[in-house]
Amino acid sequence: MKISELGEFGLVDIIRTINEKFSNAEQLSWQHLLVGIGDDAAAWQGNNHIQLATTDSLVQDVHFDLGTITWEELGWKALAVNLSDIAAMGGAPRYALVSLSCPGDIEVEGISRFCHSMASLGAEFGVAIVGGNLAAGPSLVITVTVLGCSRDKLLLKRSTATPGEQIAVTGYLGLSSAGLEMLRKGIRLDIETSAILRKAHLQPIPRVREGQILIQRGVNSAIDISDGLIADLDHICEASTINARVEIDRVPIHQVVRTYFPNYLELALFGGEDYELLFTADSNTVDRAREALDCPVTVVGHVVEQGRLPNRVTLVDGKGDVVPHARGGWEHFT
Amino acid sequence: MKISELGEFGLVDIIRTINEKFSNAEQLSWQHLLVGIGDDAAAWQGNNHIQLATTDSLVQDVHFDLGTITWEELGWKALAVNLSDIAAMGGAPRYALVSLSCPGDIEVEGISRFCHSMASLGAEFGVAIVGGNLAAGPSLVITVTVLGCSRDKLLLKRSTATPGEQIAVTGYLGLSSAGLEMLRKGIRLDIETSAILRKAHLQPIPRVREGQILIQRGVNSAIDISDGLIADLDHICEASTINARVEIDRVPIHQVVRTYFPNYLELALFGGEDYELLFTADSNTVDRAREALDCPVTVVGHVVEQGRLPNRVTLVDGKGDVVPHARGGWEHFT
Repeated sequence: MKISELGEFGLVDIIRTINEKFSNAEQLSWQHLLVGIGDDAAAWQGNNHIQLATTDSLVQDVHFDLGTITWEELGWKALAVNLSDIAAMGGAPRYALVSLSCPGDIEVEGISRFCHSMASLGAEFGVAIVGGNLAAGPSLVITVTVLGCSRDKLLLKRSTATPGEQIAVTGYLGLSSAGLEMLRKGIRLDIETSAILRKAHLQPIPRVREGQILIQRGVNSAIDISDGLIADLDHICEASTINARVEIDRVPIHQVVRTYFPNYLELALFGGEDYELLFTADSNTVDRAREALDCPVTVVGHVVEQGRLPNRVTLVDGKGDVVPHARGGWEHFT
Repeated sequence: MKISELGEFGLVDIIRTINEKFSNAEQLSWQHLLVGIGDDAAAWQGNNHIQLATTDSLVQDVHFDLGTITWEELGWKALAVNLSDIAAMGGAPRYALVSLSCPGDIEVEGISRFCHSMASLGAEFGVAIVGGNLAAGPSLVITVTVLGCSRDKLLLKRSTATPGEQIAVTGYLGLSSAGLEMLRKGIRLDIETSAILRKAHLQPIPRVREGQILIQRGVNSAIDISDGLIADLDHICEASTINARVEIDRVPIHQVVRTYFPNYLELALFGGEDYELLFTADSNTVDRAREALDCPVTVVGHVVEQGRLPNRVTLVDGKGDVVPHARGGWEHFT
């Protein structure tokens, strides 16, 4: 059946059925839900925590290619990139709304798998899909909005980085853009390697628990790496009116990327979509965070006063020499 | 300048500047805002009220034609249709997030007027624009999410209509679709008439205050008329497992529509996008609501038990004879 024959209310019924599977009564968000998908608006009981809201879109042939991504991966990624934004504030995601604009000839079965995968990822992080919209359109555009809250009345902001702090990242960088390169160029690698790269690009795991641990350990400045390490660090520099010095030899690059991609450094610095957390804190706080986290935490540089470096973000090699970089990370409309 | 040259962060700066104009400290939503547009997520101080969330998209050449709508009207309408959903729950809108997917060659000046108009409508209803997203895409798709709350711990739902209740509507029906017909067919009318119709279609005024008054007066079942009177009443019938009988002679149709559109009844019953409120309540409650509201309130029919009528929504003429209707209101993908 085509989505045009199903209509918006048919889709609401599908999402309702999927939701029932995942509406474990122990999950906070479902417990407080008063009106789910299908009314004019979703409704739930509010609380006195700090509330968070973020929205992000995936556009066909700009952010994904229906020829290489499965419906499951697409549903996962559309939600994951938003969960990552809540993670980068140190918050707990709670509710999601999903808007689809798509051609009427898309198969319902695909959209159903898309919704199931999204609900399944949501359930893993305590997120209920509570609303949405379906509209006809020339190509597929997915916009997800995620609402959450901060348990500790604290936030990880972009604007609070301070000179003297270390700059650190979780996990490894470059895996996602290496995955994209593999898919685009049809690079054939062994099954295990190819699976790691594919998953990094199409099913990133948002660092939700890690963001909350960072806040608990005293970190107050972070961003998620969606545009690329250098571009996202530049956003912190701008918001905090500081400069950043990055030692490129210290950037954590996964062995798979080093082995199969000669441009591994470019992928790690400018590639984007790794959805790791980039944060700044004094060295004691970074050490405490490292001890508390299950994932690698690597110091890649440090914060200096504004105007002290040739660029807002300056790269240096092992000898301390400045490495010029003309281009930023992923830029919209390029 | 083109939007591709401006980029997402340029747009964030434009919205910040616009917001400053409208961030009147007396407005509840701005008072509680902790982090506005430009970080990973927006943040504000939560409260114990019932929380509401809704999302709706406008797609180029499906919901609007850039040849007939101005950027101001587009910004207004994209927010207004969402405010109307909060109104239909009886809630107070508070925060909005705006996602744009658009071709890179769109002029920044147009988008800037779009944002200004949206922020201006938002300010009128106490709504702050706190987040968003900009993505490249083949055509313009606007998705707005609005968050709000219910002050009275009560909600207007679709699922609570009860046999015996009257069915009533605010304002007049058919103006919006008459406006669409005028624009599509290039119908030339006098300036005043043409302005009324254009405004009804492109700058609908969401019935936010009216929704709150309905709740205060004891109404608990409502929907906003976006798909058309009959289609939206059908949604109530489905959600409440009831039937509805509509007396077509009682449907309130504006004199302008009656005068210039021979198909005025079709426009009023099936046209959609009037963004009036359709509600059900016992006759005393409807009378109380009518007294409290500044706009017309017209009883158009009543609720009966499921299975008592030939259709879920049955139309009858002045003599009480059933009027067959083959088509519903505006359906997606038609």
